[in-house]
Amino acid sequence: MADPSAKEIEEGLALAPKFDADGLVTCVATDAGSGELLMVAHMNAEALRRTIETGEAWYFSRSRKALWKKGESSGHTQRVIEMRVDCDQDAVWIKVEQNGPGACHTGRRSCFYRAAPLRQVGAITLEFREAAKTFDPLETYTKSE
Amino acid sequence: MADPSAKEIEEGLALAPKFDADGLVTCVATDAGSGELLMVAHMNAEALRRTIETGEAWYFSRSRKALWKKGESSGHTQRVIEMRVDCDQDAVWIKVEQNGPGACHTGRRSCFYRAAPLRQVGAITLEFREAAKTFDPLETYTKSE
Repeated sequence: MADPSAKEIEEGLALAPKFDADGLVTCVATDAGSGELLMVAHMNAEALRRTIETGEAWYFSRSRKALWKKGESSGHTQRVIEMRVDCDQDAVWIKVEQNGPGACHTGRRSCFYRAAPLRQVGAITLEFREAAKTFDPLETYTKSE
Repeated sequence: MADPSAKEIEEGLALAPKFDADGLVTCVATDAGSGELLMVAHMNAEALRRTIETGEAWYFSRSRKALWKKGESSGHTQRVIEMRVDCDQDAVWIKVEQNGPGACHTGRRSCFYRAAPLRQVGAITLEFREAAKTFDPLETYTKSE
């Protein structure tokens, strides 16, 4: 039998994010126009609150252990058009208008610019896909984003 | 100056997944035809290896702490059309052909069937979006997936 609280999380209308042991949920950002997957990052409670309140994407950097407004150094902010949560509320999906030429700190539109070949065994050699840089990260970032 | 190993991870062609403290990477699954975001889950090294070798989606359940083939109980398997990795290789994107009526264990096509309203302060009331059930999970699942 389903746990009633699980049912409430899955079928209810209360926003009840299930943060992990580090206080984070996963966030997937797609381009609101094209549907392209731009990036995957994390939000803590404060990043989620600020994103909802301002309609601009805020994240929490696991490596820098810091709250981070997307585009705060690059100017490549993300205006959130729609936010959704998944069934168990441990992941958030935001459809965004990506300002500037790209979302990825390497200088590309999307962070997902390499493909892994399938149905093979052993060491995997990635292949570039849509990997042309749309901006120069060295000129764009004043600090690591 | 960029750490050379970071540069290799970001610009190289070796698959070098950056597993977190629990040995997991995030995996985003989208519909290869429509581009719709279906689900967000996790893979450990074994799930990633099996997915690459078989071209069928395998995950690792954080709640059940178990390797898990998508559709093993429901029949709703995912055939992987393309796999990509992100810049720092801690997230994987798979474009899949979703077999059966849906990816979500609640009986829906996608796990992201509720939206959170934006640009408001205080308690958030979610709104259903494309939330009609496409199958009966009680009839479909013999065990929790």
